[in-house]
Amino acid sequence: MGGTTLKDIAKKIGVSTTTVSIILNNKAPHISNETKELVKRTAQEMNYRPNSIARSLVNKSTHTIGLIIPDIANPFFAEITKGVCQEAMKSNYTVSIFNTDDDVNKDSEYLDYMQNICVDGIIAILGTDGQEKGKEHRLHKLKNCSCPILLIDRLIDGDFISVTTDNKQGAFLATEHLVKLGHTKIGCISGPLNTSFSKERFYGYLEALQKHSIKFNSELLYEGDYRCDAGYKGAEYLLKKDITAIFAFNDMIAYGVYKLLKEYNLKVPDDISVVGYDDLLYSSMISTPLTTVNQPAYQMGQKSAEKLIKFIHGELSKDEYNTKFIPELIVRESSIKNNKFI
Amino acid sequence: MGGTTLKDIAKKIGVSTTTVSIILNNKAPHISNETKELVKRTAQEMNYRPNSIARSLVNKSTHTIGLIIPDIANPFFAEITKGVCQEAMKSNYTVSIFNTDDDVNKDSEYLDYMQNICVDGIIAILGTDGQEKGKEHRLHKLKNCSCPILLIDRLIDGDFISVTTDNKQGAFLATEHLVKLGHTKIGCISGPLNTSFSKERFYGYLEALQKHSIKFNSELLYEGDYRCDAGYKGAEYLLKKDITAIFAFNDMIAYGVYKLLKEYNLKVPDDISVVGYDDLLYSSMISTPLTTVNQPAYQMGQKSAEKLIKFIHGELSKDEYNTKFIPELIVRESSIKNNKFI
Repeated sequence: MGGTTLKDIAKKIGVSTTTVSIILNNKAPHISNETKELVKRTAQEMNYRPNSIARSLVNKSTHTIGLIIPDIANPFFAEITKGVCQEAMKSNYTVSIFNTDDDVNKDSEYLDYMQNICVDGIIAILGTDGQEKGKEHRLHKLKNCSCPILLIDRLIDGDFISVTTDNKQGAFLATEHLVKLGHTKIGCISGPLNTSFSKERFYGYLEALQKHSIKFNSELLYEGDYRCDAGYKGAEYLLKKDITAIFAFNDMIAYGVYKLLKEYNLKVPDDISVVGYDDLLYSSMISTPLTTVNQPAYQMGQKSAEKLIKFIHGELSKDEYNTKFIPELIVRESSIKNNKFI
Repeated sequence: MGGTTLKDIAKKIGVSTTTVSIILNNKAPHISNETKELVKRTAQEMNYRPNSIARSLVNKSTHTIGLIIPDIANPFFAEITKGVCQEAMKSNYTVSIFNTDDDVNKDSEYLDYMQNICVDGIIAILGTDGQEKGKEHRLHKLKNCSCPILLIDRLIDGDFISVTTDNKQGAFLATEHLVKLGHTKIGCISGPLNTSFSKERFYGYLEALQKHSIKFNSELLYEGDYRCDAGYKGAEYLLKKDITAIFAFNDMIAYGVYKLLKEYNLKVPDDISVVGYDDLLYSSMISTPLTTVNQPAYQMGQKSAEKLIKFIHGELSKDEYNTKFIPELIVRESSIKNNKFI
C-alpha cells in the first residue's frame, strides 16, 4: 500500500521519528501537549495508518476473537453474535465467525484454524452433531488450545470459562406451567440427550413431574435435534400417545410442532398446548403466540466478550469464571387449561 | 506461545532447516517423497504451527475479509453472512463482522478500522440511517479505501463491485400481484427513499400502477425505515386512507402491519391484503403466511465472497463486476381478491 510513514510525519513537522512514535503510541508523558496535538493532527491529515500486522508481530496479539457458532441463521445465535461483536468492539477487538452447521468435526477443524491465525481468544457454542470419537477429539483440542476459550450455552466436561443460562430451571418452569394447567400427559421433544444442556433441560422436565407426583413415561419422550423438522416428526409420534401438551426443547422445534398440528387440523392451544424454549422474536408473531422460556441471548453474548477480554488481560478473577443467567417463562397463548382427560 | 520451530523439526529428523521450510511451504519439487512425508508427519506430531502473523507481514495479506452489516439479528442479513462465511472458508479466508445498527457513521468508522487491521477486502451492506453529510463522508472513505470493496444490496453512486437483486422487478411483481387481485388503493410502506434500493422498489411499485392505468396517489405512500415499528405506524396511517391492500418494503415492516391490524381487530387477508419483501423463514410460519418477494440471501452472500476473493487474486474480469439476482414472488395466504370498492 505504501502509505505515510512515521518518518514522513517527523520530517514534515521537524521532530524526530522517535518523538512521533512515542506520541502516537500514547507513551509520552514528558512531551508538551502542543507537540502531541501537532503530531496527532499531522498524522491524521497525512492519513497515517500504523502497520497493524507488524504491530501484531511485536505484541503477539491480533486483537481478534474467534467465534464458533452452530448456525448464524438461527436467531438465538445471531443475537448472541451481536452481543459479542458490540461488546468486543468497545475494547477494539474484532470478531471472526466460524459457522459449523452444528458439526463437532468442524469445531475441531476451526479450533486448529483459529490457532493458526493467532486469535487472542475463542468463544464457542459447540456443535452437537457427530460421533463419540469426534467429540473426544474435540475435547482434546479444547483442552490443549494455545489461547483462552470461553464456552457459551453448551458445556462439556472440563474446566472452562463459561456463560450459560440455568437450563434445568428453565425446563422446570416450562413443565410446571403445563402441570399447573392440569396437563399430566406432557410430551417432550428434546435435543440430543448426550449433550449437557439437553440433559439439564430433561432433568428440569423430570423434576417438575416428580414434584407434582406425575410418573415419568419414557414413551412420551421423543429425542430429536434442535431443528424445526424434529418438532414435526416428534409431534407426529407423540400424537399417537394421547398427549394433551408438548414441551419443545427450543422454539424451532415448537415451530415444527405447529406445522404438523396444522396439517392434522389440530388447533394450538385448544387441542394441544405447546411450550417452547428460547423466546425467538418470531415466537410472539406466529399464528398462536408461543409460551416459551426466555434466555437473554444478547446479554449472554455481551457478557462472554467482556469476560474473555478480561481473561486475556489477566483481569478475570476465579469466581467470575462461570456466569449463569436465570431464565424466565413468558406465558402467551399457546398453553391453556387441559380440557380433556380430567 | 513458544511452540515447535522449523529448527526443532529439522534437528529431530536430521535434515536442514531450509529443507523443512521448503517442504512445509510446498516448494520442493526436487526432494524425495519419502523425505517430504517424514517432514510433514513430524511437523504434525510435534504440533508445529506456522507463525501466521509473521507470514502475513511477508505476504501483506491477512486472509481476512471484513463484513459490514446493519444488523446481524435480522434473518436476511444473517443468511447473507452465512453464505459469505461458508464460501470464504473454502478459500481459507476468515470473516470478521462489524455490526453498524444501520448507522452511516459507523460504516465510516469501521472502514477506517478495517484498513488499520489490514483486511484483504471488504464486503459491505451499507447503513441507511444518518445525515447527508455523514453519507458524503462515507462515500469519500469508500472511494479512497486501500483494499477492494464489494457492496451487497444497497448501492450508492460510484463504481463498485456489487451483488444485488433486481429491486425494481421485485416490487413490480408484488404490486402487480395486488393489482391483478382487483386492488386499486394499494398503500405502500417504504424504507428511506434517499437510498438506491428503496428508490428502485418505489419505481417498481409505480411502474406496476402505471402499467395498469392506476394513478399514483402520494397520500398512499408512507415513508418509514426497515423496522417492524415502521409497519405498525405506517398501517395506522394508511387505514385512514381506505386502502384495501398494503405493499410493505420488507417482511419486518409487514410483521408490524400484522401487529397493528390485529390490535384493530382487522383480518389479513379478509380485510386487508398484505405483501412483503425478503421471504424470511418466519414469513411462512406467521398467523397468516405472508405473500412476499424472495431474494436468495444465502446465494448473494456466497457470490459476494466468491467475487471478492477472485478480485483480490486479480481473477475477476470486468464483466463479472456486477451481479444482479432475479427475485421471485412467493404467493401465500396474505393476499386475496379485493372484495370491497368494486
